[in-house]
Amino acid sequence: MDNKNKKIILASASPRRKELLKQAGYDFDVIVSNVEEVITKSLPWEVVEELAYQKAKDVFRRLLSEIDYSFINEDDYTLTVIGADTVVSVDDKILGKPADKNEAYEMIHSLQNKTHQVYTGIAILDYNFSTRKTVEKYFYEKTDVTLFPMTSEEIYDYIDTGDCYDKAGAYGIQGQFAIFVREIQGDYNNVVGLPIARLYQELKKIH
Amino acid sequence: MDNKNKKIILASASPRRKELLKQAGYDFDVIVSNVEEVITKSLPWEVVEELAYQKAKDVFRRLLSEIDYSFINEDDYTLTVIGADTVVSVDDKILGKPADKNEAYEMIHSLQNKTHQVYTGIAILDYNFSTRKTVEKYFYEKTDVTLFPMTSEEIYDYIDTGDCYDKAGAYGIQGQFAIFVREIQGDYNNVVGLPIARLYQELKKIH
Repeated sequence: MDNKNKKIILASASPRRKELLKQAGYDFDVIVSNVEEVITKSLPWEVVEELAYQKAKDVFRRLLSEIDYSFINEDDYTLTVIGADTVVSVDDKILGKPADKNEAYEMIHSLQNKTHQVYTGIAILDYNFSTRKTVEKYFYEKTDVTLFPMTSEEIYDYIDTGDCYDKAGAYGIQGQFAIFVREIQGDYNNVVGLPIARLYQELKKIH
Repeated sequence: MDNKNKKIILASASPRRKELLKQAGYDFDVIVSNVEEVITKSLPWEVVEELAYQKAKDVFRRLLSEIDYSFINEDDYTLTVIGADTVVSVDDKILGKPADKNEAYEMIHSLQNKTHQVYTGIAILDYNFSTRKTVEKYFYEKTDVTLFPMTSEEIYDYIDTGDCYDKAGAYGIQGQFAIFVREIQGDYNNVVGLPIARLYQELKKIH
């Protein structure tokens, strides 16, 4: 990607999101938001958009207030901040990250042998220093994930890998858990945490 | 996985298949078949099963003829050989690996902005040294892959990464090409080259 004059910031600490954005060919920096997340919505796709926007907005505001404008003398210089948030949803319940082994077991047990949804919300905040225009764009992607039946032993064996604790829904689709994923419908990378295809298409429209 | 007394051989040179099998927790060795592949079928799901079987059978035969049986004195010692073959299918045409840049362009151009199918055939040949029984099992998995529209520039930029040449259909879903994949339906790892979830379920039934 031609990133001349385009500064891209990923407002997320997730190593998986960082890896996906890098793999897509983008040059970017990571600046993590320290905003207190406030959830005012209840539907999963509204929640992820809301949280993605809060994270991106926090970093965007901070950067614009810190930037020394005198350094920017090139045409079409843009600053783009990308925020993201992912949740797992099953039977109308939103699952975040499990607090402990018991919660991890409950989550995985509630997901096995059926189809659940993974939602990632993305917020893109873009400032063009020549035109002084801000573009705000947010969207979400949904992926259906269907799991094979799992025995208690299989669930505990997976939990023992330690892979479950930093992940919404207590599983990571890209690791050892893959043996339980019967099929998905939607964007695979959306389940990993960043719908990179849709993000690329949206960024193309902005720049 | 408990691989005591279970010798597993992957009959494939693909580093991606090796990585997926390892990630699933299996202990195994790689022994590549040097059989001359003979295609007698025409439907893609028949072709991949046929080729997977030929590769696995070649390695299975060779190993059984070479093994020093006197070393095997444990109960339930088993030898399992896994063969795999992947093709991409679009508009009733089977796409293998592209020979050159022009063919890569033609392939990707024929895939963009529509849905195509990826088929991986798997053959499992299993010999139990106690019961002296051979189990032969083969199956295929199909995944639908839908791509966004791609410009000629995007196709050539991707070809220039060199990622396309060793891959059926001239693309690798797990690399930079991910930005063009709108959605899939089925097993993601089946597109990478090994339907690891189904393979795990089938191996569980055998052992």
